[in-house]
Amino acid sequence: MSINDLFASTLKPVNLGLDMFAEDLATQGVDTVLMDWTPPGGGDPEVISALGRLERPEIAEKIDAANQVALERILSSQPFLEGFGQAIDTVPGMTRKTILHAGPPIEFTRMSGPMQGAVTGALVFEGLAKDVDEAFELAASGEIDFSPCHEHQSVGSMAGVTSASMWVHRVVNRTHGNTAYTNLSEQLSKILRFGANDQSVIDRLNWMRDVFGPVLAGAMELNTDGIDLRLMLSQALHMGDEAHNRNVAGTTLLIQALAPYILESDFTTKEKREVFDFVASSDYFSGPTWMVAAKASMDAANGIENSTVVTTMARNGVDFGIRVSGTGGQWFTGPAQQVVGPMFAGYTPADSGLDMGDSAITETFGIGGFAMAAAPAIVALVGGTVDEAMGYSRTMNTITTGNNPNITIPALDFMGVPSGIDVRKVMETGILPIINTAIAHKDPGVGMIGAGITHPPVEAFQQALVALANRIA
Amino acid sequence: MSINDLFASTLKPVNLGLDMFAEDLATQGVDTVLMDWTPPGGGDPEVISALGRLERPEIAEKIDAANQVALERILSSQPFLEGFGQAIDTVPGMTRKTILHAGPPIEFTRMSGPMQGAVTGALVFEGLAKDVDEAFELAASGEIDFSPCHEHQSVGSMAGVTSASMWVHRVVNRTHGNTAYTNLSEQLSKILRFGANDQSVIDRLNWMRDVFGPVLAGAMELNTDGIDLRLMLSQALHMGDEAHNRNVAGTTLLIQALAPYILESDFTTKEKREVFDFVASSDYFSGPTWMVAAKASMDAANGIENSTVVTTMARNGVDFGIRVSGTGGQWFTGPAQQVVGPMFAGYTPADSGLDMGDSAITETFGIGGFAMAAAPAIVALVGGTVDEAMGYSRTMNTITTGNNPNITIPALDFMGVPSGIDVRKVMETGILPIINTAIAHKDPGVGMIGAGITHPPVEAFQQALVALANRIA
Repeated sequence: MSINDLFASTLKPVNLGLDMFAEDLATQGVDTVLMDWTPPGGGDPEVISALGRLERPEIAEKIDAANQVALERILSSQPFLEGFGQAIDTVPGMTRKTILHAGPPIEFTRMSGPMQGAVTGALVFEGLAKDVDEAFELAASGEIDFSPCHEHQSVGSMAGVTSASMWVHRVVNRTHGNTAYTNLSEQLSKILRFGANDQSVIDRLNWMRDVFGPVLAGAMELNTDGIDLRLMLSQALHMGDEAHNRNVAGTTLLIQALAPYILESDFTTKEKREVFDFVASSDYFSGPTWMVAAKASMDAANGIENSTVVTTMARNGVDFGIRVSGTGGQWFTGPAQQVVGPMFAGYTPADSGLDMGDSAITETFGIGGFAMAAAPAIVALVGGTVDEAMGYSRTMNTITTGNNPNITIPALDFMGVPSGIDVRKVMETGILPIINTAIAHKDPGVGMIGAGITHPPVEAFQQALVALANRIA
Repeated sequence: MSINDLFASTLKPVNLGLDMFAEDLATQGVDTVLMDWTPPGGGDPEVISALGRLERPEIAEKIDAANQVALERILSSQPFLEGFGQAIDTVPGMTRKTILHAGPPIEFTRMSGPMQGAVTGALVFEGLAKDVDEAFELAASGEIDFSPCHEHQSVGSMAGVTSASMWVHRVVNRTHGNTAYTNLSEQLSKILRFGANDQSVIDRLNWMRDVFGPVLAGAMELNTDGIDLRLMLSQALHMGDEAHNRNVAGTTLLIQALAPYILESDFTTKEKREVFDFVASSDYFSGPTWMVAAKASMDAANGIENSTVVTTMARNGVDFGIRVSGTGGQWFTGPAQQVVGPMFAGYTPADSGLDMGDSAITETFGIGGFAMAAAPAIVALVGGTVDEAMGYSRTMNTITTGNNPNITIPALDFMGVPSGIDVRKVMETGILPIINTAIAHKDPGVGMIGAGITHPPVEAFQQALVALANRIA
């Protein structure tokens, strides 16, 4: 758009920072969008200096070129669901005493309540402890290897707790050859990944280990073509999903694709029927599938020298960590934030655990909060207005490297989803990525109590920017 | 909205009639919506007089009250899919020598090319003729009873040709007790209902008779609850369908609901697999399902004295007919119109048959063209822009009696779909209902060649208005 086009069009001012200015405009009847905003570099001198060094033309040019490579690798990725396997047999580095978790590294004693609940539940499920109390002791003893999912080509929803016997998706990026994993949906509410761990949770995990996983794996053994997840995701966004917290369409598409193979698989009608009924019990079945598709796509953009594109955003319920293409596996962290949104009946924001889960890989890829304009119906779950949902996708254009032509938003004239968050742009504009997410109760043993909107902490981007400047400029 | 609210808001003028005025506004940078428009009553003195009589306060009040009853009956309708049966066993008045067709009554020799193609194909399928030529003679001989689907509690997509051996949906309006029927989707392109009738078409109809219908019927025998179509339709509209020509979501929802019962039904794995594959071969599987849900709902609003609410809009490819609640079974007709939209490769508008099918029952109910704001992705099929698609739903508010709170459009802040077309409002405003629809080739034996947008002929509404005035005022 040329500057002339800008002046010919109706301006919709985006107001950053001072609410008073927006209130003035509102009084004058001008349509404004109010954004969270912090001044460039968050006002920190070291960060402002780093930003200045990175903005020098010869440096900026080098970064822009690297970011285009990163973007191209993201956009060209073709993640295919190729099968399901037990974590012990498939996930790199998995052992009988390994527990993978969401977010950046964290020791057991620092974990949030819901993550501790999930860890102890998983230890009981694995038969490593006879009950949650014994599991708590074991987890704190140092005998268990805790490690982020993200460091094992994996992602995990909410607590992200993944143990040896759990079944995981196996998704291959057929363009770039890398593989990614994530566990199966337990569906919603009182479940392990939200910190619940009573017998009903363990029983469900047992059924998932003995029936759900094997049936899905058996079905995919018969589907030798695999399932093109990018194509299916693109359809889901044309069907009102944003593929983080609204997965209604994706779930129906995925089970439709699996159904003929489930039918033909070598299990009893009763077992197959249980699988259909379990999938139909919640819209979330495909939620992890889009996470792992995004992970497989983003991993292809890792390790590009000079790139300031964010390849990971993940939270462990205490720390929010990001990783950047040009700085390898290094985590940059800040405090996990409160999630603001409607609570389930009987709960208040004071009951909320902080932002948790690897599911922000969806926003990192350009869906979820970044694609909320595709999913106006999601406001019923995460709050806010339809106009706000529409606005988020446009606003995210200001902090991303490009748009994904394969994953488009019909209501925005088929705009591609904003992709390739640029650390520089986040720090220049002070606009933080938007994330929509579920809310776990802060205590272990409860479960999901709401959903809403949140942002990463600016500190993670400040650290990343300084590290990038030290490395590149 | 009070008049003050109107002036406080940004006006988006809707331009009726003179394009020059819209062009002036466009030059001035004002956002306008250009509508097809004819002057009140179409300028016809008899119609203007009828409109005047119906607008007398004591008459208008009586009509308004009747229309509220009609609207309430539409909105309160709960159509449930209860099963599938062969037409001969289920559809009222069906005989071995009956052919039901779309639209108002028409004799065989006046039928359009595609409808003649479908009729002759059906006669071959039924074994009443050995080939299409013999079928043509038989159809013209007077030995076959032709009758509109709509006069048999049924609707039929495109040619709407329904014969004795075809399987039909059985949908019960559980609120009002009436039942409606429609045949099964042949999926898309070279198929009977678009006028194709070669051996591939007959083979498919045979398979549908011998496998598809029986498997679906067997599945629904196991589902003793039935399927709540209003609820599912409401979900589909939150998933980017408008449920006339975009049925992606509805189809995945419907097959997901049927899958566990298909699985458990008493057929071979091969037959079940064929059903899953056939359903997956096109998004249209649920198209007829929404038509029959709409038919079951609209039939409940028939026969309300003094009501000017349209309960049927249907086309036979030559005539477009409407029926109105307050005038019973009487058809008011005018010429079927050209459908304007993108053509499949190799075809031009000159190849198009005129508007055809009972599928406009969807618009009569408030979905389809009336709900295009729910389905911005449909512009890829029917043409136009996303803004136009959004605008249609708002514009239809001006000619309808109310909004359906059970079937909402998220992108329009969950506005209920516009429901209960009022003949008076159509004639007062000159705004005709919008219909999106598929295009059949004008000749028998070809099939679908495009899709687009059309309107009913104003003549049908003029006749209805005069008849209503003569009856009521």
